[in-house]
Order: sequence, then structure tokens, then C-alpha cells
Amino acid sequence: MSRFSTIGLIGRPGSTQVVDSLNILYHFLLAKGISVFLETETAALLERTPESTCDRDSLGKRCDLVIVVGGDGSMLGAARTLCNDTVPVLGINRGNLGFLTDILPDEVEQKVAQVLAGEYVREERFLLDAFIFRDGKLIDKADAMNEVVIHRGTSLRMIEFALEINQQFVYSQHSDGLIVSTPTGSTAYSLSGGGPILHPALDAVSLVPMFPHTLTSRPLVVGGGSMIKVTMGDYQGGQPQLSCDGQTHIGLHEGDEIHITKKPHTLSLIHPCHHDFYETCRTKLGWGSRLS
Amino acid sequence: MSRFSTIGLIGRPGSTQVVDSLNILYHFLLAKGISVFLETETAALLERTPESTCDRDSLGKRCDLVIVVGGDGSMLGAARTLCNDTVPVLGINRGNLGFLTDILPDEVEQKVAQVLAGEYVREERFLLDAFIFRDGKLIDKADAMNEVVIHRGTSLRMIEFALEINQQFVYSQHSDGLIVSTPTGSTAYSLSGGGPILHPALDAVSLVPMFPHTLTSRPLVVGGGSMIKVTMGDYQGGQPQLSCDGQTHIGLHEGDEIHITKKPHTLSLIHPCHHDFYETCRTKLGWGSRLS
Amino acid sequence: MSRFSTIGLIGRPGSTQVVDSLNILYHFLLAKGISVFLETETAALLERTPESTCDRDSLGKRCDLVIVVGGDGSMLGAARTLCNDTVPVLGINRGNLGFLTDILPDEVEQKVAQVLAGEYVREERFLLDAFIFRDGKLIDKADAMNEVVIHRGTSLRMIEFALEINQQFVYSQHSDGLIVSTPTGSTAYSLSGGGPILHPALDAVSLVPMFPHTLTSRPLVVGGGSMIKVTMGDYQGGQPQLSCDGQTHIGLHEGDEIHITKKPHTLSLIHPCHHDFYETCRTKLGWGSRLS
Amino acid sequence: MSRFSTIGLIGRPGSTQVVDSLNILYHFLLAKGISVFLETETAALLERTPESTCDRDSLGKRCDLVIVVGGDGSMLGAARTLCNDTVPVLGINRGNLGFLTDILPDEVEQKVAQVLAGEYVREERFLLDAFIFRDGKLIDKADAMNEVVIHRGTSLRMIEFALEINQQFVYSQHSDGLIVSTPTGSTAYSLSGGGPILHPALDAVSLVPMFPHTLTSRPLVVGGGSMIKVTMGDYQGGQPQLSCDGQTHIGLHEGDEIHITKKPHTLSLIHPCHHDFYETCRTKLGWGSRLS
Repeated sequence: MSRFSTIGLIGRPGSTQVVDSLNILYHFLLAKGISVFLETETAALLERTPESTCDRDSLGKRCDLVIVVGGDGSMLGAARTLCNDTVPVLGINRGNLGFLTDILPDEVEQKVAQVLAGEYVREERFLLDAFIFRDGKLIDKADAMNEVVIHRGTSLRMIEFALEINQQFVYSQHSDGLIVSTPTGSTAYSLSGGGPILHPALDAVSLVPMFPHTLTSRPLVVGGGSMIKVTMGDYQGGQPQLSCDGQTHIGLHEGDEIHITKKPHTLSLIHPCHHDFYETCRTKLGWGSRLS
Repeated sequence: MSRFSTIGLIGRPGSTQVVDSLNILYHFLLAKGISVFLETETAALLERTPESTCDRDSLGKRCDLVIVVGGDGSMLGAARTLCNDTVPVLGINRGNLGFLTDILPDEVEQKVAQVLAGEYVREERFLLDAFIFRDGKLIDKADAMNEVVIHRGTSLRMIEFALEINQQFVYSQHSDGLIVSTPTGSTAYSLSGGGPILHPALDAVSLVPMFPHTLTSRPLVVGGGSMIKVTMGDYQGGQPQLSCDGQTHIGLHEGDEIHITKKPHTLSLIHPCHHDFYETCRTKLGWGSRLS
Repeated sequence: MSRFSTIGLIGRPGSTQVVDSLNILYHFLLAKGISVFLETETAALLERTPESTCDRDSLGKRCDLVIVVGGDGSMLGAARTLCNDTVPVLGINRGNLGFLTDILPDEVEQKVAQVLAGEYVREERFLLDAFIFRDGKLIDKADAMNEVVIHRGTSLRMIEFALEINQQFVYSQHSDGLIVSTPTGSTAYSLSGGGPILHPALDAVSLVPMFPHTLTSRPLVVGGGSMIKVTMGDYQGGQPQLSCDGQTHIGLHEGDEIHITKKPHTLSLIHPCHHDFYETCRTKLGWGSRLS
Repeated sequence: MSRFSTIGLIGRPGSTQVVDSLNILYHFLLAKGISVFLETETAALLERTPESTCDRDSLGKRCDLVIVVGGDGSMLGAARTLCNDTVPVLGINRGNLGFLTDILPDEVEQKVAQVLAGEYVREERFLLDAFIFRDGKLIDKADAMNEVVIHRGTSLRMIEFALEINQQFVYSQHSDGLIVSTPTGSTAYSLSGGGPILHPALDAVSLVPMFPHTLTSRPLVVGGGSMIKVTMGDYQGGQPQLSCDGQTHIGLHEGDEIHITKKPHTLSLIHPCHHDFYETCRTKLGWGSRLS
């Protein structure tokens, strides 16, 4: 008897490969006697509308496992919704190996069977909360699994901002922006910007300046529990933005204060046994294999 | 009454400025009724040989504070000796502000008086142990406050090595070497090599490849408690070396295994109140000041 | 008798310091018996409207020297207009030393007198033309003294594009964009993005990828006479842009071809004697001075 | 009738694959009625000692084409010897594609036949001369096809040096060293050190600081005809070195002046038709292929 008796399914729209994997998975799980809930939009992707659909917000409460079929981007969206519940999440990629979706389409039945049999590792990943204050009042908030980016948005002009960490002033900076990344996000956008790779288990956040005007600016890594405060300076007619995981966008004004902290809840990622972060690095980043 | 009743002094040889600061400090402390021990080599620097000299190894056991006068390099040497004891260390720079020696010569009496009066902050810094195994036997060891560097040494040929962290294979690499840096070392050699700045309180170690042949190699930050294992591969007639803090050097052979871990004891650094890591960054790295 | 008998003046709006320098300069030149034309917008900055105003387009034809008072940004705008004429340009900075505006406010009379006396060096800088073709038809064009940037514009999604140089395919790239920089621009935005510094006299163009998805992407330097062709790929709902010197912006579509080449005419920059590019680097970038 | 009637062969020692290619090539050329000279050391690699051997220094004078079998390293050594003659050089790699040796072992007969039939492109590459002056006297010299590196050599201490270009002071620098690279060398060691890729036809030299103490140091690209002068400063007990192509090494002293200039003669590289520099970049560096 599996420890997962009710499983939710979320699929990325727009890919026949995802629909194929969802269909296989759906029938495979039903055949195992498991109750399956399909997220509302995902249900629409399958040929017949299944009896058990469920909106994304409730999925985490009704299921004891959620499986996401798509790319790392699909996982990010699901993670931000599901992390407030304690439900663990398993990712199936639609094509290539991802950092978060590490089961390949042709392994679905074999690997999911192993997970149902209890052969898996569970890993906690933390997310970030970003709160935007204007004139001392909270005006908006957003969360991110990979990174919060404060950037020049639709303008091409550099922005200016001041950074404080745990109430200590760090620097003011003219640049295209700042990437505040979790360990999970350290292999994504932050890496393109010259940020370090943080091991997923590290309790740390990296701050990576984007095209800084001052050449001595460098990526900075601070404790995961840090209170990061960014105050927006003059932006000379531009329109700076805050973006979370490249999916949520909020406009910023001069004087806005952004408070970024670790979210109170973590997301539980389920990996098949023998999951290996460094193997994903070697595969996706082309790092060298064993000594010749 | 100061909480420090016996204080040891260590000075960097070869600088009249250091001798001046040592003399001022020596008489200042005696006048406060404090017992002062001079490290043997330091005693030789002063005009008259003082009655109370003490070798460096015993200084930590006989004193309840050690003051180092010199640059960050002097502090590194003292730290490696003193970290096995519980004695805290205070650093006085001979000229410019250092990351570890943050009292300037003309502030000596004022700042030391504050420290004696109990106005200081105490900060723990961890060091690294490096153990070298050849044919399964421990053949040498060394420790480092800033960084352990495994590098091509006297040869100009790239070295090849394999990296494992916590018994997981990470990569094999052709490069000029690898910098394994503490947070303390992250503003030193590692920074010149493109490594991130780690906040001093972060429990993490960064691994920075030196001139890697594979362009996708990136700095990697892992937990401070990690067991880092480097196995030396073929080095084509060169002579790779392990260097600690740029001060201790050990020759390496093909097949040697280097185990790098956090030292069991930390070093207690004493800072005057209002010490601010980021202010040192702004001063030494030229980061921007408050928003204009 | 000066070799410059008719001089045009252009000033950056919005700064009292610029107005002060313009006034000093205006009266200084008149006193020397030189005819002075004020660019129309600049004339409005001065207290009394002078008799001799001239629009920017005609300034290059009517004058045998144009003096720009402002920052490097003011010079970029003037350069793009004036480079089609043969008139040389001299830059006066409103505050700090610039790479293009290398006379400081308090040196105005002394340095301009030297230039009038023939004590100057003349240096040619080339600009870039960018032509945008849609469905085989030229739809827009722009020019740049510093750099042409093809970037993600108002979207946060990566763009994809293919690069050809002299009809040879170079690569396709997913990234935030591409900076195509002249030597003049190599100390500006390109430098923030990790591009190399090109000596001003070098006949070369650098191509600097912005936050490339592929970690092996590197800045590439090719001959100044190269024909650079960028073909825009899929941009997933975003709105990529072409920007010249951060001042001119043109929207791009999938399939657009951008042809970037050296402009037929160069801009003549006038520098006071003893102008030294590397001294400006040392001052503005903090490079080390003479051996200690 | 081929335009090459006398061909010299140079092979890299220590590889059976190289010996196989040499044997195939030797008999292939003889069968075409071409006179073949084997470099003395290469002759010893083949099973029977051939009648026509020739030392490396004379090879360029007696042949009208030299074929080098090995890796890019073998080509560098041959190039430094042969560039004083006008003989062109063709490279055959022993395994993978190289930047200089771009015929693969299984293509030898086909591609060499094409070259003999006149189907090839000829490309000039320049080399660097390095002259070392001590107390005003020339004490040694060396040449390089890829790069001249001035570095800390057997010491681990930073070196200090001053750089002048065309008699203009550029900077003094504390670092591990300086890489002065040709366009040919820009895809080799210089690239690992963060230098830009220079197109092979560019008349330029790049100067890449190695682990500079000052974080604002950046790669600098200057005209190929520049006179680069490095003056060695204090090296605190170390032993700095000058290395050419990683193959020639010369010890340096404090006060030594190194003059680096383009060699008067270029090396002619022969490539099969349809040779494509950027294709080699895509293959070896993993750059992206055509737009998907």
C-alpha cells in the first residue's frame, strides 16, 4: 500500500508530449487504486473531462502528493501555490532533464512506481517572500522559488537603489538591477548573470548585481534568514519592476521599499532514489566526468 | 576592571610603524595594570627585550586576549596557531584598513581602551583543515583561515583533479587549480579569482575554479560542514601544490587525496563596537555610499 | 589667429553648472573675435537669447568647431548628428572627467585657449549604422557612437536570435540580448556587461552577450569593417528592442533582420594636448598608478 | 600537378594514432610523386627510418608545405620555428578538432588531396616576439604564437609590474600575472582567464590580467602593432617567469623590462576549403546552432 493515496496532477498547457505523459500517468495511478485529482486547467488538456477536477489552490489541501508534468517553469508556478501546504511535489519533465523536474517521459511508470513504493528522497526547498511598501504601507507582495529580480523594467535607463541587510547598510548601486536568488534559483537566471551555484541544501541567498556601473560590485551570499531591504532611488523617467521567477511582475516607484525574506513554509520536493544534484549539473552544464 | 588581565602581543616584523604601535600598546597596557606577554619574535622587534616573552604556541594558553599588529597576513598566521585555544584575537593594522585588522594605528589607545572596558563585539570565524593522504596513509596536514588552494605549483601545465563533496562525485576538472575558501577568505584571493563574497557569519565554503579549461565551470558554494575530497589526476610532469593562506605549501603527487573540512575550533575575533563588515567592503572595494 | 573662426555651442539642459560654463565660454569666444552659434535649445538655456542661434542639423555645416558642454551622454547625441559633417567636436564636462568630455569646468578658458592656439590632438572615432529589415524591406535605421543593443525590451523573457558576421553563421543564442560596441562604447555599457576595453584607435567591434543562457558564450571582437547581421527568432510574447547609445529605441519583430556596419563618416574628437586615454581609465576605473 | 612538390612532415611523439596518420600520409604523398622530408624526431617515430630526414630548422627552407600531425600544441611549436620562413603549414589533429589542426585523422587522404589540388584557403597568423632587458641589455628572447604570459612562476606570491603601451603608461598591477595574447591564442589560455575571443583576422592583441588584486582590472584589446612594455616590480622573494605558448620559460628579476611586439613575419596556415572559424567555436565551445 502506497503512502500516497490521493495524488494531484498539474500539466503545462501547449505540449502534446505533456498530454501524453498526463494520460499515461492518470491511468497508471487509477490502476494502482489511487484517487487522482486533476487541476482544473490540466483537466481541460486531457481528451475527456475527468470527474475529479480541483482548482490549484485546493489541490494542496486535498492531495498527499502533487505531480507536475512540464518544465522547471511549470514547477515554479506550482511551487509558489503549493508551498503554503505541506504536500510534497514530484516533477516530470516533458523532454530534457530539469533541475526540478528530474523524471524523464519514458521513465514515468517505472519511477513513479518506485516513489509509490516509498523509494524516494524528500528534500526541502525554501522560497522567498517579497513585500513592497510605499509611503510606509504594504501595497503588494509576491513570492518566488527561484529569484526576486528588481530591474529597470520597460526602461533602458539604469536604476539606482540602496541595499540593507539585517538593518546594516550594504551599498547603493547604479545598475540594470539586482537578482536575489535562492539556492534553487542559483542554477537559473542568476547563473547567467555570473552568480555562484549554491548547493540546494544551503541556507543562503545570493545577491547578484546586473550590469553594475561600479566594476567592483560582486555577487554576495548571505544567510537564508536575512532580512533584505531594497530602497528604490531615482529612476529618471523609467519604470522599474520587481519580478518573481520571471512570472509575476509588479511596478515600482521611487522611494518604494522592498522587503525580501525567506517564506515561513518550505516546499517538499520528491526525487527518485539516487537523485544527484551534481549529476544534473554535469548533464546540463557540461561539467567533466570521471578522471580519464 | 578589564575582563582581560593578561594580554599577548604579536607584531609583524620588518615595519617601523608596527614597532611604533607595539611600543605604544605595550606601555599603554602596562599602565592599565595588565600583564603583557610578547611573542618571542615580536619581543626582538622592540628596543629593549622585555622580561615577559612567550613562544607563539603558548601565548594562547597563557593569555586571555592576543593583539596582533600588522596586516591581514599577520592575522592569518596568528589565527592558525591560536584557534586551537579559546583565546580571542584583536587586530591592529599598520596602515590601511584590513578585513581582519580593523583598528588603525592612530586609534590604538582609544579603541583598545574601549575593548578593555568591555565595549566590543565577538565574532567566531571557522578555519579549514586539509589532510593529504597518499596510498591511503595520512602524509601531511595543514590549516587555513582564508583558503586552501590546490594549484599547478611550479609547473605551468594545467592539473587534473576530481572533486567529491560528501561522497558525491561533483566533477573532474582541467584547470590551474581550485580555491576552497572560507567566508573569511572570500574577500581575499578567491575574490580575485571571481568567487562570490560570503558574509562572515555564513556557514559555507566556496569552491572557485582557477582558469578552468571548461568554460561552464562556475564558483560553487556548499555547506560549511561539507567533507570536500580532491583526488589528484595526471599532471604531466608538473608539480602540483597545496597552499594554505598563501603561507604553507605542500607538494602533491598523482593519486593523492586531499580531505578538506571545517576545523573543530573556531577563532574568536574581537572587533570594536560599531564594527561593520559592509563598511569595510565599501572602503576597500569602492562600493557606493548612500543614495544621492 | 585661430584656425577655428566659427564655433557652435551645444549644452545639456537641466544643469546650472552647464549654463555657467556656457556663459563663460560664450563671452570668452566672442572676446577672441570668434563667431559663435548657439544650438537652438542651448540658446534657450542662456539668460538672454542670443542673436546667433542655429538648429543642430545645420550647426555642423556652419561651424568649423562644435563645443559640447555636458556629460558623455550629451556628446553621444551631438556626435550622432554631427558625424555626417566634417566638423570636429570638443567636449567639456559639467563635473567629473568623462571619456569623451575631458575638459573640466574650471579649466575651460585655459584649455579652450590652447585649442584655439592650435595646441590639440585630433582623433577619429567611428560610429555604427543599424538598419532594420522586415520582410526584406528596410523599415527603420539608427546610428550609435557607443553601442547598438538588441535586447528583451519591455519583456522579461529571454530573446532568441541568430548572429552572422560577414555572411558566416556564428551562433544562435538565448539571452537577454547582445551589445554591439565600438571602441568608444567599450568603456560604457559594454564594460558593465563584462566586455573588454578596446583602445579608441582600434578598428574593431565587440559583441557582448547579455546574460546568455549558454554559459560558454564569451565576448567576441571582430574587425571594424565587419557586416554584422542579427536575425530575430521567437520571443514568446515579449517585445524585443534595438537601442542606440541608450537614447534611440526601435521595436523589433520575429524574423526582423538587423544589419550593423561602420558608418561611412567618422567623428573628429578634439582633445587638449597631453590627452591620455589610459589616464582617464586610471581615474575613472581606479587602475593602479606608478610602481611603488 | 600540385603546387606543392616538396612537403615536410612533423609529428607529435608519444601517440600511436599520430604514427598511423604519419604512415598513411607518407605513403599517400610519395604515391602522388611528391618529395617528402621527415623532421628528424618524427622520422624516429616511424617504423623504418626514411631516407629523407631533415632537422626542424631546415624544414621550412627545403619544403614548400609542412604538415603537422598532432594537437594544437604541436602546431604551436612548429609555428614558432617555421614562421621565419615563408612555408605554409597544414595541421592534422590526432583526435578531436583543434583550432589550428582542423583535419581529422579519417579525412587525411581526402582533405590533403584537395589541398594538393589547390582547393584550400591560406590565412596569415601573426606571432609575438618577447625581448627581456636587464640593466638595459637584452638578455634573452622568445616568441609565441598563442600568448606571452608574465606570471608568478614558482612562487605563490602576487607579482607587481607596470605596463606601458606605445610609451604611454597604462597601469601598475598586483596580480598573478598578465596574459598577452594574439587572436590565435584568444581561444586558448586567455579564454580560461576571462579574455575575449578575437577573430583570427583581427590585427589586435589582448592583455588579460590574471587574478588581479584590483577588481576594476579588465581585459584590454590594443592594436597588433603596439609596443607593449612590462617592467617588473618587487616580487617579495618569489621568482616570476615569462612563458611563451606554455612551452618556453624564462626567469625574470625585479627591474627587468619585457618588450612585446608583433613578429615581422607571419605564419601561413593552410585550411581545407569551407574552413569556418565559427564552426570550430560552435563545436569546441558548445555555442548554439541554427534557430530552432
